[in-house]
Amino acid sequence: MVLNVADFGALPDGKDDTRAIKAALQACKEQGATQLVFPKGRYDFHPDFAEEFYFFISNNDEGLKRVAFPMRGIENLTIDGRGSEFIFHGFINPFIVDRSSGISFRNFSIDFDRSFHSEAIILGYDDEGMDVEIREGFPFTVHRGVLLFTDGQKDEGPLTTVSKANIYGSNHMLEYDTEKRETAYMVKDFYFKNINGYPAKLIEGRKVRIRVPGLEGTVGNTMAFGPNHRNYPGFVLSDSRDIEFSNVTIHHAGGMGILGQRTDNITVDNCTVVPSQGRMISATADATHFVNCTGSITLTNNVFENQKDDATNIHGIYVQVVEKTGSDSVIVQLKHAQQFGFDFMHPGSEVEIVRGKSMITFATATVKSVDRINKQNTEVTFTEALPDDLRIGDTLAEIRDYPEVLISGNTIRNNRARGMLLNCRGKTVVENNYFHVPGAAILFEGDAHFWFEQGGVRDCVIRNNIFDNCNFGIWGKAIIDVKAGILEDKEISRYNENIRVYGNTFRVFDEGLLLNAYCVDGLTWKDNKIIKTDAYPERETPKGPFQVMHSDNVKIERYTGNED
Amino acid sequence: MVLNVADFGALPDGKDDTRAIKAALQACKEQGATQLVFPKGRYDFHPDFAEEFYFFISNNDEGLKRVAFPMRGIENLTIDGRGSEFIFHGFINPFIVDRSSGISFRNFSIDFDRSFHSEAIILGYDDEGMDVEIREGFPFTVHRGVLLFTDGQKDEGPLTTVSKANIYGSNHMLEYDTEKRETAYMVKDFYFKNINGYPAKLIEGRKVRIRVPGLEGTVGNTMAFGPNHRNYPGFVLSDSRDIEFSNVTIHHAGGMGILGQRTDNITVDNCTVVPSQGRMISATADATHFVNCTGSITLTNNVFENQKDDATNIHGIYVQVVEKTGSDSVIVQLKHAQQFGFDFMHPGSEVEIVRGKSMITFATATVKSVDRINKQNTEVTFTEALPDDLRIGDTLAEIRDYPEVLISGNTIRNNRARGMLLNCRGKTVVENNYFHVPGAAILFEGDAHFWFEQGGVRDCVIRNNIFDNCNFGIWGKAIIDVKAGILEDKEISRYNENIRVYGNTFRVFDEGLLLNAYCVDGLTWKDNKIIKTDAYPERETPKGPFQVMHSDNVKIERYTGNED
Repeated sequence: MVLNVADFGALPDGKDDTRAIKAALQACKEQGATQLVFPKGRYDFHPDFAEEFYFFISNNDEGLKRVAFPMRGIENLTIDGRGSEFIFHGFINPFIVDRSSGISFRNFSIDFDRSFHSEAIILGYDDEGMDVEIREGFPFTVHRGVLLFTDGQKDEGPLTTVSKANIYGSNHMLEYDTEKRETAYMVKDFYFKNINGYPAKLIEGRKVRIRVPGLEGTVGNTMAFGPNHRNYPGFVLSDSRDIEFSNVTIHHAGGMGILGQRTDNITVDNCTVVPSQGRMISATADATHFVNCTGSITLTNNVFENQKDDATNIHGIYVQVVEKTGSDSVIVQLKHAQQFGFDFMHPGSEVEIVRGKSMITFATATVKSVDRINKQNTEVTFTEALPDDLRIGDTLAEIRDYPEVLISGNTIRNNRARGMLLNCRGKTVVENNYFHVPGAAILFEGDAHFWFEQGGVRDCVIRNNIFDNCNFGIWGKAIIDVKAGILEDKEISRYNENIRVYGNTFRVFDEGLLLNAYCVDGLTWKDNKIIKTDAYPERETPKGPFQVMHSDNVKIERYTGNED
Repeated sequence: MVLNVADFGALPDGKDDTRAIKAALQACKEQGATQLVFPKGRYDFHPDFAEEFYFFISNNDEGLKRVAFPMRGIENLTIDGRGSEFIFHGFINPFIVDRSSGISFRNFSIDFDRSFHSEAIILGYDDEGMDVEIREGFPFTVHRGVLLFTDGQKDEGPLTTVSKANIYGSNHMLEYDTEKRETAYMVKDFYFKNINGYPAKLIEGRKVRIRVPGLEGTVGNTMAFGPNHRNYPGFVLSDSRDIEFSNVTIHHAGGMGILGQRTDNITVDNCTVVPSQGRMISATADATHFVNCTGSITLTNNVFENQKDDATNIHGIYVQVVEKTGSDSVIVQLKHAQQFGFDFMHPGSEVEIVRGKSMITFATATVKSVDRINKQNTEVTFTEALPDDLRIGDTLAEIRDYPEVLISGNTIRNNRARGMLLNCRGKTVVENNYFHVPGAAILFEGDAHFWFEQGGVRDCVIRNNIFDNCNFGIWGKAIIDVKAGILEDKEISRYNENIRVYGNTFRVFDEGLLLNAYCVDGLTWKDNKIIKTDAYPERETPKGPFQVMHSDNVKIERYTGNED
């Protein structure tokens, strides 16, 4: 059965369609509709009357969310936009898919009328601060010495001790090359601690002096002001299965574009993450990101462009043992604030037990029962006694049906940071992609002391890709880079296994590292073409294209194929 | 049955007692204990392993709360501290009492080791900013041009785009007279929009230049930096009945001291709100505050001192009609952000329907059903058709068993703003109290356009109180003041009724207003003594002690009794 949103009052007339969509989704559920279609047009979504629930979204921000498309407990439904634009206004989450299955998203774009980041043109700087001209489309105010980005609406009533103005809070800055539409060469993020706005003075019109020592940049370049939250990712997929995206465009999101957690089988094909309205930034964080997922993750024929972080990261989560409460029980703690509430242990779950500093898995166990203390701590009892040498600071992660990953035919360019973070133990193939990213194009991460992301590939093929002048920034040591957080026992820890890199083309502007690896067992490099360019100035970098340490079974066939 | 916290592992040993208290409360519930006692000592509470739930707290801030004493569904229990000190650390709510009855709190004090506000001594100022020396006990950092108050702990790891430092956010400033330990004469609040910290530069040591134009103050006075939230009120009483406080001291709270909502019968006797550790401020908002309560509210023999807002406010909440959805149904909206989630309508509830601008009640109705859309909006259907002339912007409030209020024998002094906000339709008696407050000592409020607080007394006696040099600040037009938000039809609106003021002593430092009233029906003033002092400089104020407009049945017997 096909339902049409028009029949529920959703019309491309500029009015808020949130209530109509809620009714339409309810009808789909009740009537078992397989398609919900939108007559082509622009649809608008406001938070005022949106459904609301508290949600924990890994690597984004938890909170009491207003949701335009609250898709909970829905089975076998295609949302077909028929080429429509969905425009979101203000503090609203576009899509949350929870405990659903067989969901397809097709033929629409999403955007926010006011982006969660802001942009300005650099006019100049000195020791005391920087002058910028804030671009049209990014409303702001300078109030009592503070630059605050706003929604452009007038404040309601006077300020009081309990005022809550609608501020687009920002706490970090990053310079972009205005012409090239990418992060400026070798630029660093400029971070602040938990601020909403910046010390500043209005010069005139949209010209503002940011009164912060240490700011630098090139006149004419674009300074991006990143949001101090990831509250509004585009699509959240949680505890669901069989989710597909086809011909979906994400122009903006206040967080990641697509975030999948504890979800089985996700396909993103022929989709685009790309800025709109002349903006420099699309999603304000990763284009896609998958946490403790299973089954398969397929990213094919997509364009991931100008997102303010990586194109993808596929990983699990480690919890840290903070207390032994019995021979068979411990209290474990989620450590990274954007992992809080990420419950992945249930009776019957299998976990690996990993040394916190060496990342060596030294035991496994089966969960008997869990007692959730709060979003950060859980007491877990196992079916058998834990190893005697279990230490406070060791970590646990789920052993699961690690997803088979296919990343093929994608274009990844002009984003901040890295291309693909491959931290998945399922078979992982990265082929026929084009990368032009300022950090490592491929990064193998995983650590148990800062991000607490479970990684470690077991079977990873990287072939027939073009790495076009990557790593022109600070977010990587090599174009293909290992950054696993192994602090002890590097001599014996072998966190990543069986990586084959072949048939790729590396266009490079200097003799920086192509490959940096350590604690790898099984690494093959062959038939990769290296082409020298003059795309960027050469840097003082470690010489020699390969740096491999503490690894076994490494075969590197240097410089085969054509080298221009 | 009496249970002892020591038996659950709570010991005055400096270690976190949160888990022990959770276990003890659970045991009280299961075993039907009537007392939970603490051997005298200091007990410490940390948020790490505290129970957690989302809670809406009227006139404070909603959120996912960690709670040291989560008292939900408990009946007939006395918490007897036997003179103990309860010290809370960091971001934790001391007490939340929810759907409980017959709860007594006795013989203990609560405090936070780090207060949610901060204090500094004023060193000087000019057009560009102010120099202050931040007092010991209020940790801070100046990072990249921003003064941020902190918990004094070292940051964990480097800053990233998703860092969440433990900041004690602040967004308003207020000057205090260091010697008198009260708000500086005629000082104004200095508000910012949604900031966490202030533009600033470190001078040296604890000396900081706050780079904000317009700051003024007296050298040597204390500048208080108010928190930008009310997340951590001391005691929250919600949907409960028969709650008593006796010999409880509140040294600090990150919000109100005691907040009661939808609760029946509350007694606060022989309690103290008073700063500790040389701080200028106790609770960072009202000492007590009661919303949509019923039965009785009794405040007797207490000291309410140096709280950063009123001593009490007893009121209801108006929701605004934003849409008519049928002849018998409307969508109503909570308007003030700190009222969101305040659900007070249920099938069978009676409501008054009030013109938004005149505050005239023109109809009543009975609720048939409610459909909560989100924390701000609810669709309400009534048992009968609504009046034809119901308008968007009209408001609804609950008709209930308005509490009988007794406020007797209390000392209220050195707080910010007002003494008592009397907005309750039950019999209200305020007698034998001592007031030394910088605003109105007694304020009759209520409006439907800004705070949306339902007020309007019906039977209010104010007798035998001492008003000692009140209203030396900006928070009132008169010592006994009406500030109801009546924007239309003042000629016929009579929002407050039957106020009698007699037998009181007014010590006054100038000829400012003793009484300001409008839209009152029934106002008697007699046998009040006025004594002139030289406590503060005289101001340019409206002459004559009384200003009464648009009122009926007003009897003022001027200047009877002794006038020095």
